[in-house]
Amino acid sequence: MRSLGAILLSGGLDSTTVAAAAVGEGYELSAITVHYGQKHDREIEAARRVAEALGLRQQIVDVSFFRELAWYSALTNPERFGLPRDRPPEAMSHDVPITYVPLRNTFFVTMAAAFLESACLSAIELDGCAPGDLRASIFVAANAVDYSGYPDCRPEFYQAVAEALRLGSKLGTQYGVAFEVRTPLIELSKADIVRLAIEVNAPLRHTWSCYQGGDAPCGRCDSCLLRAKGFAEAGLPDPALAVS
Amino acid sequence: MRSLGAILLSGGLDSTTVAAAAVGEGYELSAITVHYGQKHDREIEAARRVAEALGLRQQIVDVSFFRELAWYSALTNPERFGLPRDRPPEAMSHDVPITYVPLRNTFFVTMAAAFLESACLSAIELDGCAPGDLRASIFVAANAVDYSGYPDCRPEFYQAVAEALRLGSKLGTQYGVAFEVRTPLIELSKADIVRLAIEVNAPLRHTWSCYQGGDAPCGRCDSCLLRAKGFAEAGLPDPALAVS
Repeated sequence: MRSLGAILLSGGLDSTTVAAAAVGEGYELSAITVHYGQKHDREIEAARRVAEALGLRQQIVDVSFFRELAWYSALTNPERFGLPRDRPPEAMSHDVPITYVPLRNTFFVTMAAAFLESACLSAIELDGCAPGDLRASIFVAANAVDYSGYPDCRPEFYQAVAEALRLGSKLGTQYGVAFEVRTPLIELSKADIVRLAIEVNAPLRHTWSCYQGGDAPCGRCDSCLLRAKGFAEAGLPDPALAVS
Repeated sequence: MRSLGAILLSGGLDSTTVAAAAVGEGYELSAITVHYGQKHDREIEAARRVAEALGLRQQIVDVSFFRELAWYSALTNPERFGLPRDRPPEAMSHDVPITYVPLRNTFFVTMAAAFLESACLSAIELDGCAPGDLRASIFVAANAVDYSGYPDCRPEFYQAVAEALRLGSKLGTQYGVAFEVRTPLIELSKADIVRLAIEVNAPLRHTWSCYQGGDAPCGRCDSCLLRAKGFAEAGLPDPALAVS
């Protein structure tokens, strides 16, 4: 069995943990890192270091054009729709939040799948790998605990995407290899993720979760607070803070 | 009923015909035109003129980065995999052709869907349109007659994509509006498409089908020959040739 995988790697705690777990399982893993035009962003640098530490082939992609397509969101169009903090908390409870970016995860997963299909076709047609001996997995660090309300953080969505990818690909229709979309963190709390990260020896010192672009994490933004809470609940120190 | 649509508009005969038919049905239609970095391409100019003639909102997107992801193809990587004409014709009969670009149609449809979802959320949340009065359709000029062998030219693929889009979107999960992927040309011959184009008054004089980038169609490439055959079989003159 030859296991090929592709992961959406942001350089944060979650995707780095998933990447390290996949490598630990024996996957030959490729990483897609997307950004919105900020090429010198601290997060991209983190993703680059994580990919290097894990020995991944990495493709860094500028998807800033996607903002013009998926324009109805506070993230792609903050001038028009306001920042999340401008909305009353009660509006967040049953609605999909205004920070939802139309079909972003579908778009990202499809890019990862195109990269993965290329690797799989190469394995079959150039390396002579038997299709029956091939496993093709897309890894997504989606989480339904901290991001409840997002439609693209639910298992039934990923099953439907996998089926569409199978039917729309040469890999699925000619060679009978189905895409698998794996979301190992989907039910985990941040503390669970921290424990898993330590268990799979994820290169946490290279990760970056802060929304600010400073030299060290600000420690005050939502992302820093969520991460700190995770490490605190797991009873472990954060290696990224130790070196900064 | 308010009908919102998005179309992948290349500026060729097929997508222009689909666009004109959708406008004729009363759709408020947005067009996505993708290119691979050749910004002054004759085809993009054609797409721009067609969109203008039909009064469409248009987004032109450079997707040249996709070549690095979907690298296993004679179209994205001709140096490595050779041009289609280098392959023996018998290899084309049961295999998916080497000109298949991994998951390109899935990728393009997802972009169109993100644009369409933005328009639909705006119609519901800003204009006050009732979700039950909204129709959301993605138009694709896929054709299974001239492009048999491509997995992403089959109806079951588009049904699966529509289901993934429904489950992965705020539009589908919060408002219960399903995406519809419409492929009106999928079973038509080129002559049928020409007849339909005339019937829906498609702005054919602006279209461009030639693979070459000259001032006038070369008349010799596969695309020119296929188009000429369609007009000949339909017994009609080609308006794009008449003005050139």
